[in-house]
Amino acid sequence: MSQSPVRIAVAGALGRMGKAVSATLEGRADATAVARFDRPGAEGEGLVALESALADAQAIIDFTIPEASVALAETIAAAGGGIALIIGSTGFTAEQDARLAKAAEKITIVRSGNFSLGVNMLMGLVRQAAAALPAADWDIEVFEAHHKRKIDAPSGTALMLGQAAADGRGVVLSDVEDRARDGVTGPRKEGSIGFSVVRGGGIIGEHSVIFAGESESLTIAHSAIDRGLFARGAVAAAVWAQGQAPGIYDMQQVLGFKAV
Amino acid sequence: MSQSPVRIAVAGALGRMGKAVSATLEGRADATAVARFDRPGAEGEGLVALESALADAQAIIDFTIPEASVALAETIAAAGGGIALIIGSTGFTAEQDARLAKAAEKITIVRSGNFSLGVNMLMGLVRQAAAALPAADWDIEVFEAHHKRKIDAPSGTALMLGQAAADGRGVVLSDVEDRARDGVTGPRKEGSIGFSVVRGGGIIGEHSVIFAGESESLTIAHSAIDRGLFARGAVAAAVWAQGQAPGIYDMQQVLGFKAV
Amino acid sequence: MSQSPVRIAVAGALGRMGKAVSATLEGRADATAVARFDRPGAEGEGLVALESALADAQAIIDFTIPEASVALAETIAAAGGGIALIIGSTGFTAEQDARLAKAAEKITIVRSGNFSLGVNMLMGLVRQAAAALPAADWDIEVFEAHHKRKIDAPSGTALMLGQAAADGRGVVLSDVEDRARDGVTGPRKEGSIGFSVVRGGGIIGEHSVIFAGESESLTIAHSAIDRGLFARGAVAAAVWAQGQAPGIYDMQQVLGFKAV
Amino acid sequence: MSQSPVRIAVAGALGRMGKAVSATLEGRADATAVARFDRPGAEGEGLVALESALADAQAIIDFTIPEASVALAETIAAAGGGIALIIGSTGFTAEQDARLAKAAEKITIVRSGNFSLGVNMLMGLVRQAAAALPAADWDIEVFEAHHKRKIDAPSGTALMLGQAAADGRGVVLSDVEDRARDGVTGPRKEGSIGFSVVRGGGIIGEHSVIFAGESESLTIAHSAIDRGLFARGAVAAAVWAQGQAPGIYDMQQVLGFKAV
Repeated sequence: MSQSPVRIAVAGALGRMGKAVSATLEGRADATAVARFDRPGAEGEGLVALESALADAQAIIDFTIPEASVALAETIAAAGGGIALIIGSTGFTAEQDARLAKAAEKITIVRSGNFSLGVNMLMGLVRQAAAALPAADWDIEVFEAHHKRKIDAPSGTALMLGQAAADGRGVVLSDVEDRARDGVTGPRKEGSIGFSVVRGGGIIGEHSVIFAGESESLTIAHSAIDRGLFARGAVAAAVWAQGQAPGIYDMQQVLGFKAV
Repeated sequence: MSQSPVRIAVAGALGRMGKAVSATLEGRADATAVARFDRPGAEGEGLVALESALADAQAIIDFTIPEASVALAETIAAAGGGIALIIGSTGFTAEQDARLAKAAEKITIVRSGNFSLGVNMLMGLVRQAAAALPAADWDIEVFEAHHKRKIDAPSGTALMLGQAAADGRGVVLSDVEDRARDGVTGPRKEGSIGFSVVRGGGIIGEHSVIFAGESESLTIAHSAIDRGLFARGAVAAAVWAQGQAPGIYDMQQVLGFKAV
Repeated sequence: MSQSPVRIAVAGALGRMGKAVSATLEGRADATAVARFDRPGAEGEGLVALESALADAQAIIDFTIPEASVALAETIAAAGGGIALIIGSTGFTAEQDARLAKAAEKITIVRSGNFSLGVNMLMGLVRQAAAALPAADWDIEVFEAHHKRKIDAPSGTALMLGQAAADGRGVVLSDVEDRARDGVTGPRKEGSIGFSVVRGGGIIGEHSVIFAGESESLTIAHSAIDRGLFARGAVAAAVWAQGQAPGIYDMQQVLGFKAV
Repeated sequence: MSQSPVRIAVAGALGRMGKAVSATLEGRADATAVARFDRPGAEGEGLVALESALADAQAIIDFTIPEASVALAETIAAAGGGIALIIGSTGFTAEQDARLAKAAEKITIVRSGNFSLGVNMLMGLVRQAAAALPAADWDIEVFEAHHKRKIDAPSGTALMLGQAAADGRGVVLSDVEDRARDGVTGPRKEGSIGFSVVRGGGIIGEHSVIFAGESESLTIAHSAIDRGLFARGAVAAAVWAQGQAPGIYDMQQVLGFKAV
């Protein structure tokens, strides 16, 4: 890693998270914003075109939408790599996942549904509790609440937490997930992992994993207090990514909770 | 109302709520259990046949399933009425609602998704807050959690709370409800009322109505501590129903929050 | 009220809330920042001396500490009034209250433990629920959580909510409050209103009023999502105060929930 | 351990927890109630005198008050031991602790502030999170809520959770605990562990440990759904204690989370 600040371009710079990333980059010693861009044709003070951003940056931080993130990865890969891509978009299809994996043969990608230290800590605790509390006696439910502008459900973080619970139990999430209860559902299926979703106002991000037993329940929860949280984690990932080999990494690796 | 205890038959007597009703009736001065029955063919200590229960009772308390509750109402009506029916089952179809209304020309029915004082209080607070906080600035969400044996979602109480919110706003619930978010949902629709559901373990019953604004949120919540709560409310309704004209009443009327 | 923007000076301009007030004033049509000041000797970009702030302003917004707020009120009163003072400081002593009342003979003061619409709505709901739910069956508790920098406990808002509950019950808060349980306390005293306090990290502000019965509980809660919330309410109060007679007003009056 | 059911005497048999223990013992294969007693002079169906209980029992389950529990331990020890004592009372003084330790030279004691599996699981998660999240960035708070009859605060479980957090951080709880914030407290002290307490109605038992950072918070919480929970854990401890050497054990050892 070079001693000079890592040169970062901000994708989706007109969006809520794009602005938070720009704000976080002000006055830091280890990273600096060298370009801000948004979708083609977008107008805003200080925006540049994508090509110009690519020319300058060592890393791009991208909280946009899956299609835009994948296209950006493919553009960087086609240009021969050399720019790390930090992706915070969520809700990818299997096809988009595959295109991202292909691009990652050429470029270093850090991708996470949630860049906060607390959530990544939570994942470890959830995995453990799920391993220790037998499915016959304890039902696992993942609850999340976000602001009214969020367009996918459950959140990427909720799915990550469900994955951590499934890992703890040694099952495949897609086999056991129960995603939208409505109407006459019948009794809860043993071993399933349920998801529920609230959307409203400016809620920044709440996540809970509930382990419900017959006579007691355990809840492990995270609450985001300000949006800067995710931006700071993404910048840390951009700095960490410098010098890493091409591939897809996650925040557990950036934080040292998991081997590279 | 006679001074002697109201004679009550317990439907679904082998079920969880049936047992709670029986337990609540022990040692009360204003009501007494005279019969316990369950579905035809069910076996259990002290169970009687339906005909025998009908011969003895002034009121029947029924926490079963919609079809059983409707059939019971029709049986009582066909026999000329004279027995009040207290219904705690939830998840009725429109057709079942219509049959119940027909039976209520002959018999006194008290029907509620929730017989607790606290929840009925909550409904009034929700209606007011919904009337005072404009839909453009405040998003309404109803959250509920229940035990793993519950077979319908959202709970009858959650729907009642959604109805109270819709009433407060002067809108029709079915026009604005948003019941099972999953996948790419797009941004939240202004004025909608969302529902979310947790199922697990022995959770007795949790309900929250969230008013989420851009910079603050307000939550009005109810938590059941023991199941006796609902049984006691149902018994109070059975006592209240004596001498009321045929028709369908609700707990707001039993508690005096709404005129008969 | 004049059509031109109300000219506002920001007290405690270097503090967290002072900065939030300055940020809120940017780009508004109905109010504008004309001066920012802090304690004598404080240094910061754009700070002016108190005298200069007094010369320019129609209103001062002050989220500092009680002694500073009282001294400011006395200074304005001694100068003959004409500047409205919006006070968000909390934790006043009886002696400081008295000095403020004296100053209010000359100046218009709006003082609130909480300037948010949601909290002021909450107060009305709490008052009603406390009036409807009898003390023999329902115990009232006020819980609050704030960031680690807060220096008084319980928060001014928590005390306001306790006051609303006491009003609903027709009792005097100081007769029934139970403020710091520790050790062998004995059973809870019927009719008391308890307070509990969490302090940590950057928590912006959480308040709950719990009505706990034997078999159920009701909770009315407020959560602040961003600090701008209070700043916006304070600016609204500053605009509202223009043209009001000298005296001490509260946010219930600014919002029209209570007569002036 | 013998194959025949462990013969258990229930202390404080007229109390809420005594009744729950009796109910739990009905119909179990591994343990059976052979005697029920309460304070001298207490009257109730089926109560026996202490001497008679001592003559029959292999274990005594005692959820009473510290002084009664200590006196019982001393009586058993004076009689030469041979009966395991399972203690759920909380709020012991240092002097009472010392007397208990002395008695434990002769008898096997299992003592816990909380006999539930979930709470003991929670303790492990809290210890880990406290070890991983540095005190400079994360403030730890323990919150608990119980019914209005509880006479000590904070609960024994809350103190156990505080102890688990202190262990995780490698500090001594009594050096860092902050137990009853009220008035002008000044800013929160770095590294302190705060406690807050709600009392009301029939709340069975809620505990939360909050890790509050500047931009996010993590909460690990437990909720008791029914009182049978603690009774079942105490009976499991009574069975486990058969054949253990004299000494004081805790629930972590009974559950195998910690070595004997």
